[in-house]
Amino acid sequence: MTIYNTADINTWERFYRANFINSLTGFKSVSLIGTANNKGQNNLSVFSSMVHLGSNPPLIGYINRPLESSAHTFSNIEATGEYTINHIHSPFVHKAHQTSAKYSESISEFAEVGLTPEFLDGINAPFVKESKIKYALSLQEIIPIRLNNTFLVIGKVSRIIVEEDIVSDDGFIHLEKINSICSNGIDAYYNTDLINRFSYAKPGKPLQIIE
Amino acid sequence: MTIYNTADINTWERFYRANFINSLTGFKSVSLIGTANNKGQNNLSVFSSMVHLGSNPPLIGYINRPLESSAHTFSNIEATGEYTINHIHSPFVHKAHQTSAKYSESISEFAEVGLTPEFLDGINAPFVKESKIKYALSLQEIIPIRLNNTFLVIGKVSRIIVEEDIVSDDGFIHLEKINSICSNGIDAYYNTDLINRFSYAKPGKPLQIIE
Repeated sequence: MTIYNTADINTWERFYRANFINSLTGFKSVSLIGTANNKGQNNLSVFSSMVHLGSNPPLIGYINRPLESSAHTFSNIEATGEYTINHIHSPFVHKAHQTSAKYSESISEFAEVGLTPEFLDGINAPFVKESKIKYALSLQEIIPIRLNNTFLVIGKVSRIIVEEDIVSDDGFIHLEKINSICSNGIDAYYNTDLINRFSYAKPGKPLQIIE
Repeated sequence: MTIYNTADINTWERFYRANFINSLTGFKSVSLIGTANNKGQNNLSVFSSMVHLGSNPPLIGYINRPLESSAHTFSNIEATGEYTINHIHSPFVHKAHQTSAKYSESISEFAEVGLTPEFLDGINAPFVKESKIKYALSLQEIIPIRLNNTFLVIGKVSRIIVEEDIVSDDGFIHLEKINSICSNGIDAYYNTDLINRFSYAKPGKPLQIIE
């Protein structure tokens, strides 16, 4: 095992450090965020920082980078209060990664990468038609993280679209059955294999495997 | 595809909703957080809400639940300003899940579940000896999320312990080679298979696969 301290980390070249530190948190949620501006111009961008905040009310957060490097998604959410989060499946992972390119605001990433916008009544933000699990959020709060000029963007789930046959009787969703992916670092994408579901843990009580 | 709206979600039974909403964000980072109180009593608990905030400085956040349901880790971090985050590998996933049981503060989860505390000079929080990638953090800021009484706990990486042979020349860490796992929902754990790493995306430029 090798040990690195703060002085070591400070000597690392910029891209080496970005790759290394981005792998530290482990495998990440990765999804496509769909937005539109007030003129109806669609935007789609890949994010790997979705985080569950609570189920009642259903609150989900994501981290938005400093505004100079990631502006369109953020400004559309601020302007309209609406966005969608769409799972990525292995057959279109390369299209999802391509949305991270810095397109100008007048360009729709949907058309550029070959994904299809899809709309629900009453929601101006586009979903990704190819995604088998996706949800709309209404903006609740943007919390600035002053330490590094990022933002925690918090939304409340207002609509869910899902393939019904992957939802278990107890509400658990078998994401591996539709090849939803996860990511690692800034550029790696993974399929998954279920190890086990385990019963609610209690002191001194053996775990059961949930079939 | 089935569509659910807010009224539907509000009718869901509590555990059904928890399972369902927890799966929405997709596969999650999952790790063990190690802390000690001011008397040196160790604590270890599984968390699935680690989120990368930035690489320079190296900042990592996690979401702490409301204090009545998750108090020891949080109070130890508040008291000492130090904690460790330790990857979970498939051979000890059941031990990791068992740390979610509500043990009293005087009990060390290390002893209860059969994992080994390990220490580095100058850091009072325990690492997990069995973990092949782990890091210490110094507390930077606790941001209250008033919408649901949770907290974003932000730390700066101060020490990293890693098996050197899984780190690529460009800093990327092949987490799948050491069977680091990810999670889904509140009780499911997964191994992963690398699909691809892709080159930095630019408009109009085909992606390359990074070998």
